[in-house]
Amino acid sequence: MSEARVDDLVAGVLDGEHRALARAITKIENREPGYRDLVSALHAHTGDAEVIGVTGSPGAGKSTLVDKLAKRYRDRGLTVGVVAVDPSSPYSGGAVLGDRIRMASNVGDMDVFFRSMSARGQLGGLSTATADAITALDAFGKDRIIVETVGAGQNEVDVVRTADTVVVLVQPGSGDDVQMLKAGILEIGDVFVVNKADMDGAATTVSDLREMLHMRDGSPASAGAAGHHGMGSMADGDDDVAEDSADDWDPVVVETVATENTGVEDLIDALDDHYAHLRETGELDRRERARYAEGIRQLLRSDTADLLEDEIARHGGMDALVDAVQAREADPYTVADRILDPLADCVDRRRE
Amino acid sequence: MSEARVDDLVAGVLDGEHRALARAITKIENREPGYRDLVSALHAHTGDAEVIGVTGSPGAGKSTLVDKLAKRYRDRGLTVGVVAVDPSSPYSGGAVLGDRIRMASNVGDMDVFFRSMSARGQLGGLSTATADAITALDAFGKDRIIVETVGAGQNEVDVVRTADTVVVLVQPGSGDDVQMLKAGILEIGDVFVVNKADMDGAATTVSDLREMLHMRDGSPASAGAAGHHGMGSMADGDDDVAEDSADDWDPVVVETVATENTGVEDLIDALDDHYAHLRETGELDRRERARYAEGIRQLLRSDTADLLEDEIARHGGMDALVDAVQAREADPYTVADRILDPLADCVDRRRE
Repeated sequence: MSEARVDDLVAGVLDGEHRALARAITKIENREPGYRDLVSALHAHTGDAEVIGVTGSPGAGKSTLVDKLAKRYRDRGLTVGVVAVDPSSPYSGGAVLGDRIRMASNVGDMDVFFRSMSARGQLGGLSTATADAITALDAFGKDRIIVETVGAGQNEVDVVRTADTVVVLVQPGSGDDVQMLKAGILEIGDVFVVNKADMDGAATTVSDLREMLHMRDGSPASAGAAGHHGMGSMADGDDDVAEDSADDWDPVVVETVATENTGVEDLIDALDDHYAHLRETGELDRRERARYAEGIRQLLRSDTADLLEDEIARHGGMDALVDAVQAREADPYTVADRILDPLADCVDRRRE
Repeated sequence: MSEARVDDLVAGVLDGEHRALARAITKIENREPGYRDLVSALHAHTGDAEVIGVTGSPGAGKSTLVDKLAKRYRDRGLTVGVVAVDPSSPYSGGAVLGDRIRMASNVGDMDVFFRSMSARGQLGGLSTATADAITALDAFGKDRIIVETVGAGQNEVDVVRTADTVVVLVQPGSGDDVQMLKAGILEIGDVFVVNKADMDGAATTVSDLREMLHMRDGSPASAGAAGHHGMGSMADGDDDVAEDSADDWDPVVVETVATENTGVEDLIDALDDHYAHLRETGELDRRERARYAEGIRQLLRSDTADLLEDEIARHGGMDALVDAVQAREADPYTVADRILDPLADCVDRRRE
């Protein structure tokens, strides 16, 4: 594959060429030379897309729902980009390739641009790469960008955090599924979808979920907490709630049967409501700022990690350093100082 | 409190003064000026202690078991240090203070030196501080050091990893407890203790646990895996197993009723067996090396994070950087480059 020039890629993406968009995201995914310049150049043209993150346990029907959602957006005349991210299997792309084919056949419309991505084993690499892919899709001019996590991984939370609105899919059935959501996922969801709502036990799942969301937003300590909907949590003036969840947004539970297109309109309404809420309360701005700050920190961390690996190599490699510590000739602190002091000196001298 | 001089503290610790030891660990816990020099000086005198990590769900009886274990070691003429680490509540020391009183009254013997520690909100700070406290206790001359996690936190795994042998306590009763261990804890245990073994359901818990440990060590894919005990897993030559668990060690399940001193001798036997195994197989050395390498990396990461915060401040602070990104005057990559390029230049110039 010949390596595309960054300028040409940027021009192509901004001109709305899907081919250029695909090559740009490949460059981003593989961290090919020039990807940083590419993302830098595209960033100036972003800011118009609405980004929706979709996560949930495997088997909940994420991919079918995302298909239907994309199609419905297209029916409304909106352009759509989908990034399916696999945080759990860093190197293989097998299952993901299958997905790509599914999307193409179901939607049959290049205005739903579908793209899968996997981690490259880097520290925080997947959320950075996802954010960069969103930058490309946004600069291209997609109205709606859907970030879908494939499978369940520890860093799926990081991935969907790149979105404005986070949708969590819950599979009806045993109460186990709602319980399992507790670990980090419940806290980040803005809209919850009980898909396959025609299954046995779906009603129980919906009410279990509503109860847990009520506990999440109310004060867990006080039994007489404010009602699930309404002004209660605003009047509380509870800063913790404001920080943990999206301001005073009461998470919505939507029931769908994606395979039969049931409830997809309700989901779009809920997404629109949430986005309007984000804009009106200034939360959209706050989320964007938090994402940029985290993005900058993440880049600084990973770039510095590379710098440190080089310095460790210059000092004979980690094995040699551990040898010295084990022989009690040095200790971890003196080793760290030995590596970092010259760097810190450099910085100090520059400041003078 | 007057700040003790590092030299005096080092001399005091090496002379076996418990007062100096207590002040040294306070210095370490609070990251008071000079703590790095202190740990550096003590490191040369370490290497003789056997370190045992104890973790498990709250209510499993960790503190009682640790009390009895410490007392039994004392009966054998060994000196003991206990560090109770609370990874879940970073700032409060309430519950932990209660523990300190408990130990003092139960054992009534200064040769069991008991000390509680809590996190200081630092990135990876708790495992570093725990490792440093172990250094102090080891240099002091304690024969056995027990690291006990108080409560269950996400980084309890990091804390007990500072130990040679990891003991996981399981509470009998509902199968839930064994299921809950799956997330990271099952993988790191060398010795499992079903405490309160006189309770209803204890036998089921023991057999559930044995089954899960069997699955952990055998190949999950092949049904005809080697037996739980014996030479099976060695003959397999399975590298994955060797990396995940302590070589070819078959984790042991011990039943205790700590309140009645039942099974504590069995536990000590299991700990002795495991330590002998570590020594004979060279795994003790490998674990020590892995810990030192991780310790060095952790220090480099946290020191660099400080350096980066200074640089961010020099560039007007994170808010100003985000302003520029949000206004599309800059993007995260150019911001990161602007901060790191001078540092990288420094390093390059030094190398020439």
